[in-house]
Amino acid sequence: MNSGRCAACRYLRRRCAPDCIFSPYFPSNNPQRFVSVHRIYGASNVGKLLQQLPTHLRAEAADSLYFEAQCRVEDPIYGCVGLVFLLQQQIHDAESQLAKTLAEVAVLKSHAKHPQAQQFEAESDFNNLLQKQLDNVANLSFSNQATSGFM
Amino acid sequence: MNSGRCAACRYLRRRCAPDCIFSPYFPSNNPQRFVSVHRIYGASNVGKLLQQLPTHLRAEAADSLYFEAQCRVEDPIYGCVGLVFLLQQQIHDAESQLAKTLAEVAVLKSHAKHPQAQQFEAESDFNNLLQKQLDNVANLSFSNQATSGFM
Repeated sequence: MNSGRCAACRYLRRRCAPDCIFSPYFPSNNPQRFVSVHRIYGASNVGKLLQQLPTHLRAEAADSLYFEAQCRVEDPIYGCVGLVFLLQQQIHDAESQLAKTLAEVAVLKSHAKHPQAQQFEAESDFNNLLQKQLDNVANLSFSNQATSGFM
Repeated sequence: MNSGRCAACRYLRRRCAPDCIFSPYFPSNNPQRFVSVHRIYGASNVGKLLQQLPTHLRAEAADSLYFEAQCRVEDPIYGCVGLVFLLQQQIHDAESQLAKTLAEVAVLKSHAKHPQAQQFEAESDFNNLLQKQLDNVANLSFSNQATSGFM
């Protein structure tokens, strides 16, 4: 028998009131969604968090809680923070490659203007520019990271 | 009087046993650290999560729980997921700029070999290469994101 209760009320074996805080965000056809957030945060904390938000923001909050809970279930040590580390590394790699490529563009442009330049000069210019760009990346990438206090 | 209890046991007004699960990770000189994780996850869930991990991994887990809890306190709607979105945007921007710059390098190199090429051809080459690189970025950036199911 389908009682019409949401996933949370079914799991907690209680009546699902018309104004149930979980009902719009934890439908009965996706019980795992509630199980995950309940396991990590506890139903009471999830309910309190949703309750303190304006109604139109609760769906987004429920989604992000579910996402973080899933991350923590899959990676109990780092949770969502593991993903943050991974993305920071990707940014650093992309910015390093960009710095290298920008230095290459600058050298190619300078040699298009002065085609008589020696190969030795080209390499020296490139290395100087690359070092400058990499210094910029190093300064930019990790100075403003929100995780700097954590790492 | 300093009872020698950890921040968790002080907050919960209980005796701090020698094998207290919180004690090594929530020292009494940083009460806010425990308050944050307790507010978001609840002491019992934090204790359970730490208990199920090998001892040498608990410090990292306590750090990441604290980081995520702080994110959620500061941004109750998106928490740590807000930071993930921000980093994904940064990666996308860096990869788009990289694609553009790689296309520029390819055109400059091709024109260094064939200096007689027309300006019109140069622009056309550049736009074709750029489109190709941007297509690659679009395919790479968002196909493998761990958040694809969430967004």
